[in-house]
Amino acid sequence: MTRPVWFEPLAVDAGSPARVGRLHTPHGSLETPAFMPVGTQGTIKGLTPSMVHDAGARMILANTYHLALRPTAEVVQTLGGLHRFMNWDGPILTDSGGFQAFSLAGTSKLTEHGVKFRSHIDGRLLELTPESAVTIQETLGADVIMCLDECPALPAEKPAIASAVARTIRWAQRCKDAHTRADQSLFGIVQGASHEDLRAECAEALVAMDFDGYAIGGVSVGESREDVRKALEVTTPLLPANKPRYLMGVGRPQDIIDAVATGIDVFDCVLPTRNGRNATCLTAKGQVRMRNAIHKTDTRPIEEGCDCLACRSFSRGYIRHLFIANEMLGPILASIHNLAYLHRLTRQIREAILDGRFVPFRAETLEALGP
Amino acid sequence: MTRPVWFEPLAVDAGSPARVGRLHTPHGSLETPAFMPVGTQGTIKGLTPSMVHDAGARMILANTYHLALRPTAEVVQTLGGLHRFMNWDGPILTDSGGFQAFSLAGTSKLTEHGVKFRSHIDGRLLELTPESAVTIQETLGADVIMCLDECPALPAEKPAIASAVARTIRWAQRCKDAHTRADQSLFGIVQGASHEDLRAECAEALVAMDFDGYAIGGVSVGESREDVRKALEVTTPLLPANKPRYLMGVGRPQDIIDAVATGIDVFDCVLPTRNGRNATCLTAKGQVRMRNAIHKTDTRPIEEGCDCLACRSFSRGYIRHLFIANEMLGPILASIHNLAYLHRLTRQIREAILDGRFVPFRAETLEALGP
Repeated sequence: MTRPVWFEPLAVDAGSPARVGRLHTPHGSLETPAFMPVGTQGTIKGLTPSMVHDAGARMILANTYHLALRPTAEVVQTLGGLHRFMNWDGPILTDSGGFQAFSLAGTSKLTEHGVKFRSHIDGRLLELTPESAVTIQETLGADVIMCLDECPALPAEKPAIASAVARTIRWAQRCKDAHTRADQSLFGIVQGASHEDLRAECAEALVAMDFDGYAIGGVSVGESREDVRKALEVTTPLLPANKPRYLMGVGRPQDIIDAVATGIDVFDCVLPTRNGRNATCLTAKGQVRMRNAIHKTDTRPIEEGCDCLACRSFSRGYIRHLFIANEMLGPILASIHNLAYLHRLTRQIREAILDGRFVPFRAETLEALGP
Repeated sequence: MTRPVWFEPLAVDAGSPARVGRLHTPHGSLETPAFMPVGTQGTIKGLTPSMVHDAGARMILANTYHLALRPTAEVVQTLGGLHRFMNWDGPILTDSGGFQAFSLAGTSKLTEHGVKFRSHIDGRLLELTPESAVTIQETLGADVIMCLDECPALPAEKPAIASAVARTIRWAQRCKDAHTRADQSLFGIVQGASHEDLRAECAEALVAMDFDGYAIGGVSVGESREDVRKALEVTTPLLPANKPRYLMGVGRPQDIIDAVATGIDVFDCVLPTRNGRNATCLTAKGQVRMRNAIHKTDTRPIEEGCDCLACRSFSRGYIRHLFIANEMLGPILASIHNLAYLHRLTRQIREAILDGRFVPFRAETLEALGP
């Protein structure tokens, strides 16, 4: 099979494993490290595709679970596939749907065959298997698709995590066997929580299967920042340098910086858009809560020097008014700013790595961000 | 006082009083007949100013009642005035706040001095007088401001309407006396419901006061389409040809066409954006309900040939999905389309008048729109 997605490592930092690269897909390239906004139901909430692009995003994520339930993968296909459906002409990644089948759906039942669950929308009984997860994602048509993995709720005892790792490895092979579309790439997902030996076991088994890229899963579901860093420091070096490395579900600026320091290339998270809808804005000096009365007559933008639509056009006082008055434009503008902030951060990260000064950049940036 | 807003009549239709003109303001000009979208709280719900402009709008309306309560006229002024506040560099009109003080607020009490009411937000007791309505609008800083009028709830007995007309005339004089800003224009409002004699009495009294423009009020609050047409046919000819004529609160395509036929120049209404949020789209063939299952796999745009962002970029199937999935982008796209539709309609109206074929255009357009 041809490899439609391939990774071009460009530079490694002078003082850390942090690296700059380029991810090539049938829908264009992505400079890494990069952050992917999340369009759960085939739309980045409240934003048009051109707003997302103007905020700097080049690759986005859509959720297979949500789209498979509504409007269904077949409807998306009939409407021209995921890119045409949502009018996003750049790279798209879909997850496997497994995480939501476990966490969002009604009582789910896990067997070696797959996971049975009830739709959170209408209670229908559904099953997701490694094979159907791949087939649904092939029908949706993203550039990068993900293996179905078992992500146990954390904290969990080590034997439960070991069992999830073993099943994740077996399911990864079934996903690879089921994968047919030559214009889509399939990524494996490394599980193992904070256990070095389990992360290593999973990484080595998946690397032996030769996936097009590797994700690190299970870090955003209940582990401490210290545990995550430890898991990354163990796992990332085991992943091949010529393949992209994707840390799933991470979007806190501090966590992105820490993960880049171990050699991670790509991130996704609902944080910038969810925070934006809740009136919390990300800035280089930490979070700013836009409902706060302190902004009432503030003529400054959310963040001085930011070139996003919100900061170019509107005062903090106006944006606060929008949130207090429950106007849709508030969440829209704050979401745009948060995406623009994260894309500025990843651009600065790339520049710092290319200049061989990522280590001091990391220290300064974390200091300015605060806790 | 200089007249910052002035009206340039350009052409009258060959077979009707329908006319084309240009309204000049300190923030640019407006080709008439024109429709003004409503930005109640200083934002056209869900849309950025550039989306509103791209949809064809050149002049917008903001509501004095809402802005005076929140964030207050003083805060808007501190944030640079209404244009800077909402980043709309084109013409803006504010209403007087009277209509909402009567209809939205808690039990209102009307005296010759003004109207006392309780804020619908926090229950504060407030008073709007002809003088304070002008002062608040001067503080907000729109290009065109409106007199405080008495708009009785309809249906009402004729003596009640006669009394409202008499008070509207007295209040108009007080507004004119209170008006100080040379860069803002003040419009009078003709009341009188469907009574020809009362409309005529009101129009003549206001014209004698020489306002910068004239609005026809009270037509969107309970009168039949036949009553409205009759009121317009009586009132419009009494208004001076060299002043703009504004029909308040009207936005149904059929009603706009009927009103233009009597010589109306400007309209405002929440209809296109409110309908858009409720998944109802306006088209030349009548309304299309986007939640309908018939659109599920429809790859066509909302309206063939429409050049709005929604129709250029997205299928009916996708927009239906957005509404069914309760995604903000659905209301955003439908609102954009509805504004673009109304602006296309007014452009076609202007072209028909300039070509002297408004009468057949009206018949064909009403026929295609259906009931």
